[in-house]
Amino acid sequence: MKKKYVHGYTARECVRLVDQASTLADILHSGTVYPAGSNVLEAGCGVGAQTVVLARNSPNAKFTSVDVSEESLRAAKERVSSQGFTNVAFHQSDIFHLPYEDDSFDHLFLCFVLEHLPNPIESLLCLRRVLKRGGTITAIEGDHGSTYFHPESPYAKKAIQCLVDIQAELGGNSLIGRQLYPLLKKSKYDGVRVSPRMIYVDSSKPDLVEGFTKNTFIAMVEGVKEQAMRSHLMEEADWDRGIRDLHRTTEEDGTFIYTFFKGEALK
Amino acid sequence: MKKKYVHGYTARECVRLVDQASTLADILHSGTVYPAGSNVLEAGCGVGAQTVVLARNSPNAKFTSVDVSEESLRAAKERVSSQGFTNVAFHQSDIFHLPYEDDSFDHLFLCFVLEHLPNPIESLLCLRRVLKRGGTITAIEGDHGSTYFHPESPYAKKAIQCLVDIQAELGGNSLIGRQLYPLLKKSKYDGVRVSPRMIYVDSSKPDLVEGFTKNTFIAMVEGVKEQAMRSHLMEEADWDRGIRDLHRTTEEDGTFIYTFFKGEALK
Repeated sequence: MKKKYVHGYTARECVRLVDQASTLADILHSGTVYPAGSNVLEAGCGVGAQTVVLARNSPNAKFTSVDVSEESLRAAKERVSSQGFTNVAFHQSDIFHLPYEDDSFDHLFLCFVLEHLPNPIESLLCLRRVLKRGGTITAIEGDHGSTYFHPESPYAKKAIQCLVDIQAELGGNSLIGRQLYPLLKKSKYDGVRVSPRMIYVDSSKPDLVEGFTKNTFIAMVEGVKEQAMRSHLMEEADWDRGIRDLHRTTEEDGTFIYTFFKGEALK
Repeated sequence: MKKKYVHGYTARECVRLVDQASTLADILHSGTVYPAGSNVLEAGCGVGAQTVVLARNSPNAKFTSVDVSEESLRAAKERVSSQGFTNVAFHQSDIFHLPYEDDSFDHLFLCFVLEHLPNPIESLLCLRRVLKRGGTITAIEGDHGSTYFHPESPYAKKAIQCLVDIQAELGGNSLIGRQLYPLLKKSKYDGVRVSPRMIYVDSSKPDLVEGFTKNTFIAMVEGVKEQAMRSHLMEEADWDRGIRDLHRTTEEDGTFIYTFFKGEALK
C-alpha cells in the first residue's frame, strides 16, 4: 500500500521525519499516555519517528509496531534499540491483513498513515477488528490545506498545491486532517472527538521557524520538486519563486500556520 | 473611518455581532482579566458586543469605550446599561484623534477593529500614545483566509473570497489575523505574543454549528451578496451554490474551521 509513498524513503527523508517528530512530539503526543501493561498496536510505524515518543511517554505499556516496509522496520528497530527502549515489538504487516486475532489490542495508534491510503475507512475498519471493545484509537494526521502564511504568495500556494495533487495521484489525501471526525464515525467508532493541534510560527519562536517551517514543511514541499516538474504541474521558475516565498515567511516579519488533527475514539 | 464598515449597521447585523460575541466570548476573552481599579480603553467598541464581556469579566476595572459612530455608541450604551453594568464610560472618538493625554490608560483592548482600517500601524501608534509605559495592549482579529471545511467547494471558497475582496476595496484587510505579530512589532510594542484561537466545528458540537458556522460565518458571507453581485465578483448561480455548499459543511459529516488571533504586547 505504501510502496508509492509520496515522501519517499531516502536517507534525507528519514532524517526529516525524525526531526519533525522531535519538534512536534510534545504538541502531537500531548494527552496520549497508555497505562502500564496495556497492549498497544502502532499501525504504519514507518522509520519509528513516533515509536520512540510512544515508548518514552508510556514506558510500561507494550507496543507492537507494524509497517508494510521491511526497510522502514529495520530503521525503526535500530532507532528504538539505540535509544534503549525495550517495550516495542516489530512485525512486518499490511493494515488490511493484520495477523492478529479479533479484539487483541487495548489501544490503537496511527500517525501520518491514513493520508497515504486510498481507502481510509476500510483501513480503520480493519484496525477496529483487532481492537478490544472499550479500547481507544488515536489517529493523527496533517492537512496541507490548513497552511497559510504572511506574506501571502500565489507561487507558494501553487507549490503546496503540487504536493496535494501528487499525493492525490498516488491515491492519498493530504487534506485528511479536517476529515478525521467523519472518517472515524463512518468506520463505526464511538465517542469520536477531534482536537486540532495548530502550529503557529512567528519570529519569536526560532525553534519552530527552523524545526517546523524550514526543516519540516518547506523541506517536504521541496521534496516533490522533481515529481512536480516531471508532471508539468508548474513552471520551474514559478516553483523556485514559490520556494523562495515560503522561505520569506521565516523572516522577522513573517508568520506561518499549519494544523495537525488528532482524532480519538472508542470501539 | 468606519463609515463604509463592510458589515453594515443594520438591526440584523447588530443581532449577529452580539450572537457572535456570546458564542465566542469564552474563547476570545479567555486570559483577559483586568485588575481592580485599572483604566482600560476599548477602542472601536461598535455596538458593545465585546464591551459587555469586558465589563463582566473585569467588574472592578474602569472601561472607557470609544467608537467613531454615534449610532453604534447608543446601541452599546443601551446594551451595557440594560445588563446592569456601571463600569463603562462611552465617548465618541476617532482612533486617530483620541482626546486623551499621553500615558492615560493602564491597558488597551480592541477586537475586530484593525481589519477595517487602511493604516493599522498608524492606528496602533496612535493608541500607543495614550497607553502608560508597562501597560498592555490586547488586539483580537479574525482571518478569513484561515477558513477551510469539509466537503471542499470551489464555489464556497469563491464566495468567501468575495468577502475578502470587498473588505479590501473598502481599505480593510480581512487576512489580518496572521499579521498581528509583525503589526504590533512595527508599531513599537514590546514583548509581542500572539495566541491563535481556532474554532473547530464538527457535528458533535451543535452549539458551534449553529452559533458559529451558520449564524456567524455563513451569515457574514451572505451579508455581502448584494455588494458581490453589484460588483460582478461572481455569477449569482455560483454564489448561491457557494452558500449552499457552506451550509453542507454543517451536516452530520461536515467540518468547519476558522481561526481568530489574539495579540498581546506591552508599551
